[in-house]
Amino acid sequence: MIRLHYYPGNASMAPHILLQELGVPFELVRVDREAAAHKSAAYLKLNPNGLIPVLEDGDQVLYETAAILLHLADTHPEAVLAPGVGTPERAQYYKWMLWLSNTLQAMLIHYFYPDRMADDAVGAAAVKAHAEAAIGRMLDQLDAHLAAHQGPWLLGTDYSAADALAFVLCRWTRGFARPARSLPQLGAYLQRMLARPAVQKVFAVEQPAMPAV
Amino acid sequence: MIRLHYYPGNASMAPHILLQELGVPFELVRVDREAAAHKSAAYLKLNPNGLIPVLEDGDQVLYETAAILLHLADTHPEAVLAPGVGTPERAQYYKWMLWLSNTLQAMLIHYFYPDRMADDAVGAAAVKAHAEAAIGRMLDQLDAHLAAHQGPWLLGTDYSAADALAFVLCRWTRGFARPARSLPQLGAYLQRMLARPAVQKVFAVEQPAMPAV
Repeated sequence: MIRLHYYPGNASMAPHILLQELGVPFELVRVDREAAAHKSAAYLKLNPNGLIPVLEDGDQVLYETAAILLHLADTHPEAVLAPGVGTPERAQYYKWMLWLSNTLQAMLIHYFYPDRMADDAVGAAAVKAHAEAAIGRMLDQLDAHLAAHQGPWLLGTDYSAADALAFVLCRWTRGFARPARSLPQLGAYLQRMLARPAVQKVFAVEQPAMPAV
Repeated sequence: MIRLHYYPGNASMAPHILLQELGVPFELVRVDREAAAHKSAAYLKLNPNGLIPVLEDGDQVLYETAAILLHLADTHPEAVLAPGVGTPERAQYYKWMLWLSNTLQAMLIHYFYPDRMADDAVGAAAVKAHAEAAIGRMLDQLDAHLAAHQGPWLLGTDYSAADALAFVLCRWTRGFARPARSLPQLGAYLQRMLARPAVQKVFAVEQPAMPAV
């Protein structure tokens, strides 16, 4: 059995979307984030980083959101949510998974937790402002990519697991002065994502904070 | 033909190591970093992030260090530098590639470029100090992983493309008060890496800053 440790609207939303796309049986385990359950000894045994999500797949315990997405797509090849191994499309799929994780998501974390990189409120405000500016440039890059390449999805004509991650991260900018939804290509892309039945099911179950994007 | 755009000791060292491990023909293109060639219009066409490395593989242009490693290992299956697709080992391989990129490498970048997240010298010093402390905890995690799991390499008995990335990032801490080499398991691991002929070839060609680790 597949079990996903999640919290509404967190990075866990991306593998939750993918599980709905796959249409396979799975169990959701809500992490009691308000009680810091993700920092408990039991949870740290699953993920020493104390971060959500964790995926349990039989005996296997896996963390890192993008790794969970890559794993789920690989182990359900019938759903074709990843390009074939060894193809040029596969290389670009890896590229987006990495860029979304180490560039966009990493900077979003600084935006939401600026105190982790600063000694005082003044320093934290500076970190937050630099993060928001950097994220703005990253959203521009995503928008330019969507404008330059054919096809409704990140990789082109084929929807992939990378879209689930891009969607969730773009959603996190909904409180920004210039959110992802305000960019021409990204705005339309997020609406296409919201129209997918799998995404709608996830919203119905998680009941995350609104607006949707 | 495979062409790697590199700079000595940069993240490009990881795919350079992997290319030496694969034993395939490739061409190195040294990026004139001192002249900011990686921010030139020509380079930004290859990688809009203006970062090193870029891999050209025939018509394919690829950036993101870990994506390049994943791609090279996938397209040279005879070298067996990645676990089989769909296996539990493959999931852990993805996990380490992601964690090294979005956690360890991302924090190392803040350590080396703290001014990007601060308004002044005081804020930058705080960012640098927070980054060094966070990196220390990450090295402890890597050390604990190596202590808890059998086998000389990150994934256990089998050397993989993830080791090339772990090595290069650990090397970047050589100027720290508490560098990776000073940790018991990591120190031995780095020596095992230095003993590999592929790594020795890369040092001979790149002539990166010393000490080696």
